[in-house]
Amino acid sequence: MDIAYINGKFLPKDEIRISPDDRGFLFADGVYEVAKWYSGFFFDMESHVTRLKRSLSELKIGWKEPEKLGSIALELIRRNNLENSYALVYIEITRGAAPRTHYFPPASTPPTVYAFVKEIAPESLPENTGVKVILKEDIRWSRCDIKSVALLANTISFQEAYEKGMKECIFVRNGLITEGSHSNIFFVMDGALFTHPESNNILSGITRKNILRIAREAGIKTMEKAVPEKEINLCQEAFISNTSAEVTPVAEMGGNRIGDGKPGPVTRLLRKKFDEGISALKG
Amino acid sequence: MDIAYINGKFLPKDEIRISPDDRGFLFADGVYEVAKWYSGFFFDMESHVTRLKRSLSELKIGWKEPEKLGSIALELIRRNNLENSYALVYIEITRGAAPRTHYFPPASTPPTVYAFVKEIAPESLPENTGVKVILKEDIRWSRCDIKSVALLANTISFQEAYEKGMKECIFVRNGLITEGSHSNIFFVMDGALFTHPESNNILSGITRKNILRIAREAGIKTMEKAVPEKEINLCQEAFISNTSAEVTPVAEMGGNRIGDGKPGPVTRLLRKKFDEGISALKG
Repeated sequence: MDIAYINGKFLPKDEIRISPDDRGFLFADGVYEVAKWYSGFFFDMESHVTRLKRSLSELKIGWKEPEKLGSIALELIRRNNLENSYALVYIEITRGAAPRTHYFPPASTPPTVYAFVKEIAPESLPENTGVKVILKEDIRWSRCDIKSVALLANTISFQEAYEKGMKECIFVRNGLITEGSHSNIFFVMDGALFTHPESNNILSGITRKNILRIAREAGIKTMEKAVPEKEINLCQEAFISNTSAEVTPVAEMGGNRIGDGKPGPVTRLLRKKFDEGISALKG
Repeated sequence: MDIAYINGKFLPKDEIRISPDDRGFLFADGVYEVAKWYSGFFFDMESHVTRLKRSLSELKIGWKEPEKLGSIALELIRRNNLENSYALVYIEITRGAAPRTHYFPPASTPPTVYAFVKEIAPESLPENTGVKVILKEDIRWSRCDIKSVALLANTISFQEAYEKGMKECIFVRNGLITEGSHSNIFFVMDGALFTHPESNNILSGITRKNILRIAREAGIKTMEKAVPEKEINLCQEAFISNTSAEVTPVAEMGGNRIGDGKPGPVTRLLRKKFDEGISALKG
């Protein structure tokens, strides 16, 4: 029986139920985080806590204990006997349950805090493989910087990729590549690493931030600058990044082959350095 | 004890609980409708059913019985003894509960269908009063034509109006007035009635549609054409419309007084005709 977390309690997941008055259910009025457990530790939990605090603050959701994310997540690992596995912990905080009004309920309304853990397989993509992704107009709102549960645009866009057997939907806004439905995207052009700058049009990914750091440490020139859709064919490499899949090479984007369709040298180097960073943490 | 509806059953609302795996809670992956009960009948239930079908179809949510909206709503009125009252029935249909993935769960996953009723006071705004509203950049996604529960942008925008003591937040996109956070907006310029045309940037309101019909029947020229923000000061009248508040005159918008700040002749005529239409249905 899976054990999940709700408002201070660890319970069998099947026993957890949400009020139909929950603003997460009625208004998508909530935020979330997903952190990865590497058979012994969470990677960069500190950044997840920092980003969660920012999301809560931007939406004025009054959960007072975002620092507890780490201990809740760890307790979920323990209670589900996943210490020696790989897993993702999901946590969602909504503005709580209250009679339905477009304005916020009284600040005294307790937020809903829900978390669960899911075991995953360790990274599985073979070294010489890249994924295919679709390109699609970015139909999302203009506060993509908030990690909210208002994910309808992301899901219906990703579904289109999924039905075509593709692994991600990459968004284009005003002619510029922004990010994926649940990943950031990087390009390599003439040896330099490009990714969309932090802005209201992308979520500031924690893996994104770590990849930029690793690239700089490896002496790779990094450019936080959006790549226009019409310059994709000038790129020799591309990859997507997120907490669960880390660095995933892209072989084809919107029907355009990237480079020779195989993971290029910069992508392979960054994957290796990322893995080494994880191994070092394992000690 | 309030009686609400969940997946085929009428139950005390306090007993109804939603799975934390519900895609309404995790992804805002659902749609809704709100219909008004006028102490004896629902106004234009047929249009609510038609719009619900469209929303479900656009998102490929497989609820097979949208025609049941009317009978579910009526049964909620009966079971809550609201036959002789005014009330709003809210219904939400989500893609159901399933392990969290950005792609859709199997089509066999039963959708979640939840509905509740809330008694309201009959229309209360005095005849000679208008409301004040704020103007704000439209931060929503570009599928506002779908009546989805991905309402986070609407709530945080409306909250800003609410905190300023204003009654609605009117959105501006690319310099054009689109609609309110939970209403459509109309303007009167030189005797003609203007409102944003149906498009992916507004929700096609049922009251909006009925007002356009009433106006045409009354010989008023109707223009489904967006009003630029910079032409607000050329308008003699403005009002917002939605299912619950029907026609609500606007006295001030973003600090600009509209006309002389009192409901103008076209607004008053349309309110009167709308009320007469309701009275006629009462028989």
